[in-house]
Amino acid sequence: MTDELVPNNSLITATPEEGRALAIKLARFTIRAIQQDPGVRKRLRPEYAEDPDSLTAAAHVVAIEFATIAAANDYWRKAS
Amino acid sequence: MTDELVPNNSLITATPEEGRALAIKLARFTIRAIQQDPGVRKRLRPEYAEDPDSLTAAAHVVAIEFATIAAANDYWRKAS
Amino acid sequence: MTDELVPNNSLITATPEEGRALAIKLARFTIRAIQQDPGVRKRLRPEYAEDPDSLTAAAHVVAIEFATIAAANDYWRKAS
Amino acid sequence: MTDELVPNNSLITATPEEGRALAIKLARFTIRAIQQDPGVRKRLRPEYAEDPDSLTAAAHVVAIEFATIAAANDYWRKAS
Amino acid sequence: MTDELVPNNSLITATPEEGRALAIKLARFTIRAIQQDPGVRKRLRPEYAEDPDSLTAAAHVVAIEFATIAAANDYWRKAS
Amino acid sequence: MTDELVPNNSLITATPEEGRALAIKLARFTIRAIQQDPGVRKRLRPEYAEDPDSLTAAAHVVAIEFATIAAANDYWRKAS
Repeated sequence: MTDELVPNNSLITATPEEGRALAIKLARFTIRAIQQDPGVRKRLRPEYAEDPDSLTAAAHVVAIEFATIAAANDYWRKAS
Repeated sequence: MTDELVPNNSLITATPEEGRALAIKLARFTIRAIQQDPGVRKRLRPEYAEDPDSLTAAAHVVAIEFATIAAANDYWRKAS
Repeated sequence: MTDELVPNNSLITATPEEGRALAIKLARFTIRAIQQDPGVRKRLRPEYAEDPDSLTAAAHVVAIEFATIAAANDYWRKAS
Repeated sequence: MTDELVPNNSLITATPEEGRALAIKLARFTIRAIQQDPGVRKRLRPEYAEDPDSLTAAAHVVAIEFATIAAANDYWRKAS
Repeated sequence: MTDELVPNNSLITATPEEGRALAIKLARFTIRAIQQDPGVRKRLRPEYAEDPDSLTAAAHVVAIEFATIAAANDYWRKAS
Repeated sequence: MTDELVPNNSLITATPEEGRALAIKLARFTIRAIQQDPGVRKRLRPEYAEDPDSLTAAAHVVAIEFATIAAANDYWRKAS
């Protein structure tokens, strides 16, 4: 489903590791929703993946998405 | 209603997927409120949609809007 | 009152739509408090309102202000 | 006291308006702690006060400081 | 395990110091997940480690990751 | 101890003023952990301390660190 913004339509994950992977996906799916042309996305990728500030900015977004996911999962405290 | 800032005037959505879509709309509606000329907005769109740092910055805003929406919906825990 | 930073001196609004409008005002009133010369503010406006990254940055601030306002209003849950 | 970082050493204010003013001061006092030369600070001021992106970035910091102050004051709910 | 995003798959640490170290690792592991070529990462490192704004941006991400970890550990209040 | 990331290994402080000072230290200690060469750090300092946008970015990080510290200390409400 190409318009999917949240994998499995849920913020709940079994572990922090899976929560982190979900955070990365959420960020990527937003980009995909804004820039829907796969060719353009592919062309832009090397531009930022070899720019340290672009990588830090991407990591910043992942950190924010993860904060939400971690709260949703009550920080996986029961699993720890 | 062209001045609308919050679709349906509510932060409550049935699912995370709908919450994510709302986050994207909230961000867009802010831009529309600041730059009210549709012609200007249309002209600016390719400028940022093909710039990886602009896309990351847009995804950043969506992540923050979503954090608020997710909290409003208690992270859709009952639905999961 | 030209030094006003918070309209009506309250974060409480009846609806999300009004909360969103308040978020935009809070951001604008901060700018006004830092740059108090109306002539300068007017001159700067087109500079950022036609720059997509400036618009995204402004939307970012609005998103943060709104997060605070939404929490203050318990996300308007009773109204939904 | 030139090293003061928090006016009155408290986050509690009577109103949102005062909380907003405190947020602006907290941000300014951080800058003062990092750049302690008043001459340099004075020289830098016009550089950013006439740059729209600098103003937005300053408003961004104020928004974050205010979020903390608003939470500290339980959003002044009892006063509203 | 080269794809690991969260060391020990847990946000729980014994102390704030360990929580801080975890925050730095989370940020680095995100970068590693986005830019998987170790040679590229090594080449980019001096570019940002000698740029003050890049360092501040990295510290920004660490601050956000730490906020999540600190909340997960209830701010290590019992240990203090 | 040169690798220290959290002074006294605690987020608890007696006052908001001390909490603010801790926020500044946390931000600085992250930079120190990423760029461990004191000579490089010293050389970079004037570059950002005389750049208004760099100062705002630094104040931004301090604001985020302080939000965490303030929450850890329950906003020093009992002391106010």
